Amino acid sequence: MFRTVELGRKFTKEQYKAQLPELRAELLQMQFALSKTKRSVIILITGVDGAGRGDVVNALNEWLDPRGLETISFERLTDEERERPEFWRYWRRLPERGRIGVFFGGWYVDPIREFAYGESRQADLDDALAINQRFESMLVADGAIILKFWLHLSKEDQLKRLKKMEKDPNSMRRVSERDWKHVDLYGEFLQAAERTIRLTDTGDSPWYLIESKDKRYRDITIGQTLLDVLRKHLVQLPVEKNIALPSPETEQKLIAKEDLLPSDVDLSRARLTILDQIDFNLHINERDYRKQLEIWQARLNRLAWAANEKRISSVVVFEGPDAAGKGGAIRRITQALDARLYRVISTAAPTDEERAHHYLWRFWRHIPHAGTFTLYDRSWYGRVLVERVEKFASEGEWRRAYWEINDFEEMLVNHGTLVAKYWVHISKEEQLNRFKEREQIAYKRHKITDEDWRNREKWDDYAHSVNDMIARTSTNYAPWTLISGNDKRYARIEILKTLCHALEKMLD
Amino acid sequence: MFRTVELGRKFTKEQYKAQLPELRAELLQMQFALSKTKRSVIILITGVDGAGRGDVVNALNEWLDPRGLETISFERLTDEERERPEFWRYWRRLPERGRIGVFFGGWYVDPIREFAYGESRQADLDDALAINQRFESMLVADGAIILKFWLHLSKEDQLKRLKKMEKDPNSMRRVSERDWKHVDLYGEFLQAAERTIRLTDTGDSPWYLIESKDKRYRDITIGQTLLDVLRKHLVQLPVEKNIALPSPETEQKLIAKEDLLPSDVDLSRARLTILDQIDFNLHINERDYRKQLEIWQARLNRLAWAANEKRISSVVVFEGPDAAGKGGAIRRITQALDARLYRVISTAAPTDEERAHHYLWRFWRHIPHAGTFTLYDRSWYGRVLVERVEKFASEGEWRRAYWEINDFEEMLVNHGTLVAKYWVHISKEEQLNRFKEREQIAYKRHKITDEDWRNREKWDDYAHSVNDMIARTSTNYAPWTLISGNDKRYARIEILKTLCHALEKMLD
Repeated sequence: MFRTVELGRKFTKEQYKAQLPELRAELLQMQFALSKTKRSVIILITGVDGAGRGDVVNALNEWLDPRGLETISFERLTDEERERPEFWRYWRRLPERGRIGVFFGGWYVDPIREFAYGESRQADLDDALAINQRFESMLVADGAIILKFWLHLSKEDQLKRLKKMEKDPNSMRRVSERDWKHVDLYGEFLQAAERTIRLTDTGDSPWYLIESKDKRYRDITIGQTLLDVLRKHLVQLPVEKNIALPSPETEQKLIAKEDLLPSDVDLSRARLTILDQIDFNLHINERDYRKQLEIWQARLNRLAWAANEKRISSVVVFEGPDAAGKGGAIRRITQALDARLYRVISTAAPTDEERAHHYLWRFWRHIPHAGTFTLYDRSWYGRVLVERVEKFASEGEWRRAYWEINDFEEMLVNHGTLVAKYWVHISKEEQLNRFKEREQIAYKRHKITDEDWRNREKWDDYAHSVNDMIARTSTNYAPWTLISGNDKRYARIEILKTLCHALEKMLD
Repeated sequence: MFRTVELGRKFTKEQYKAQLPELRAELLQMQFALSKTKRSVIILITGVDGAGRGDVVNALNEWLDPRGLETISFERLTDEERERPEFWRYWRRLPERGRIGVFFGGWYVDPIREFAYGESRQADLDDALAINQRFESMLVADGAIILKFWLHLSKEDQLKRLKKMEKDPNSMRRVSERDWKHVDLYGEFLQAAERTIRLTDTGDSPWYLIESKDKRYRDITIGQTLLDVLRKHLVQLPVEKNIALPSPETEQKLIAKEDLLPSDVDLSRARLTILDQIDFNLHINERDYRKQLEIWQARLNRLAWAANEKRISSVVVFEGPDAAGKGGAIRRITQALDARLYRVISTAAPTDEERAHHYLWRFWRHIPHAGTFTLYDRSWYGRVLVERVEKFASEGEWRRAYWEINDFEEMLVNHGTLVAKYWVHISKEEQLNRFKEREQIAYKRHKITDEDWRNREKWDDYAHSVNDMIARTSTNYAPWTLISGNDKRYARIEILKTLCHALEKMLD
């Protein structure tokens, strides 16, 4: 694979100088055009040690307008990063729409290094690559333009380059022990890289192999590639239609994915939904409720401390119709928890920073650090519920959200986080009663709005969406728990109980 | 001081139950009113160990609507926090306008503990308290409502409470070694607390001493206090006039403060400003420029690595008229730096999340972590420049900004960060030339807007504001460097050179 980038291509100083001004001018123009769209650009700079990744990043910083550009580089994991799933550090640094993010390193560095070091097997590498690929295709579907550059250098050239750098006191880059180790492992790195590129070079987020022996050739080629890609995406299409929709081919893949998901619901019984199976007669009397509440809150309290000691985090999601009692249930949980151990995130309209990112970004922000709870009062499932019903999201968007969500939750679970999801349900009649009750009570009146009444009219549409959601996102690692909510007391105890059981299972 | 809160006040269960429903209803109403204003509420919960700080936080969480509330608690410093000034951890967690933040602990915990442990002297405590007080009065001036609660317990009651907790397996709170240590140091803690309360109990951000022997009395009293304060702020004034302006008395203090600032400018020569003293004839020829550029960039490169090794961070600020060459100067710096060592922040219009906070918040966000640079292309000085000239900020706002900024920069410097500030200046004629030139060049055309032309018309107003700014914010720990910018080359070398010198001084 790498033979084609060991051809000794180069530019003379004159050739370089002749090309640069126009290239820079055009890049700036494209960057300006980009800033008017809803798309972001993600440039990944990676490759052989000594190939000049830092120089390339610097060149891009020089050529482009810094006001629309950021460089994202990674040091060792900070403890805030270590306490969350690996991709949190990437999510929090993704560029906003209209901007360019140059990733110095990124999500390929660790998989390749681990394989080259002999710390992981090929199957591990392949797994990591599959995750990377899905991450990228999710961003691309959201409008991101991704370019991945692999800077190549032959073994001899690498050795020469590093030796020269080591001698030069003004070298921008410091040569470290690790560099020499990597020279020794040149073959292993190349093997890992070859597999990486082969498995993750998709039409959506392609790899560009760049011959890096000659710095001028390398920089101009990267600049030119970036320009061509931006032009293709930003000029050929009218600006308004810029957002990429999944191609029919991609859609096909998504549907195939969904078929693989566990589904404990028979979708053929079209009229009935899973919600019709909920037994609304379940209830508990006041005295038993008091007793049970005390028991389960005490138990949850002990479990929360035990989880805190083991640094296990929990993500608890509450969804359900308006007035289903989500807030009350959440309060019964937080009553049992030390205030330092939890955070409640109430999902309202996104801020403009949130809107400038993929819809999952705003939830990634609040992922709990080690040993604590984040309770989401409504969540990312809005994408396949309200956004679907109200048509805020296109069909392509909400359909692919199922696997995006499953991937997201899988990352949490793989990191050792408990993911508990509750659908608190009430009957349509019970909702009416509660709406009316709220209108009666002065301080509850602001809890009921015209929107609540409008949502109520779409009851059946919601039921249908909930059914699909539960079928597609009830995974073995993060199943839904359906809660019968007509009796608030019953619902609260049920939630406390199942949450305790889930924590106990985690702690075992 | 604490005798008054050892009176044994308490509520029976019946009294508690009789008061609670109305209190909760009214609190919710006030919270709803708050959400419609531009004010935030900051509640600090602190006090004697075992007095039930956690219980109070839980009660507030239960009584208030979680959608407008957050609890902010602190564990050990994370490494991301340790690498920045102490107050970074508080700034990043401040509640947005319209919301309530309950701080479980906060900026009083360390000063009090250190003094009680005998790790600091009274002068250190007083210094820390002065910083806290200035921090609070800054937030209050920005519209925040601050309530500080000290939960008191006598020594005997503390001992009893902790013993009981230790025995109770369901206790929400865990009793630790540290608690017993604090029992031994009861007297020292009380002494520190007394001084703290005495020195920081201001009309703007008062302390409330709460007798905490009886939990019901404690919780109801805190809830009632919160309600009274919210009512005072939100009901008695018409909602539109809610933002507090500094009282004449506060203004007086501010002016006195300003007089203490070093001022190397004779403000009485009213017509001339410091900018008139800039010698625009300074220049450098192309050949010397190339040579000097190489020398100083190499030196900066070495210094940046040395600073990185010593974990010293740098904050470099660029201000100056439109087209002064700030961007070009920044690029000459970043060319010399490894891309992993710096970040350029171009200050444009704030996002809505930024607007929902004090204006310094958006700059605190980007404070560099240990060993790296943040280069600000325009900065917090916008408050006393464009916001003053365009009247986006009231006179009270931009006047107090001088000391807010000085405090901010002092925190950076005290943390060991280099703060370098450049005013890059050009003559009015030179600006005209550059504007015209930009309009000629296709890819530079978007750099010049109608706004630039409008700003130009206010040249003299800006000059006057710059003069004040430099007089008031040229501190000995973070002085301004004025750069003659008509010759771009000269300006770039001058900036590189002085930045190198400043770094060398830091590294010595």
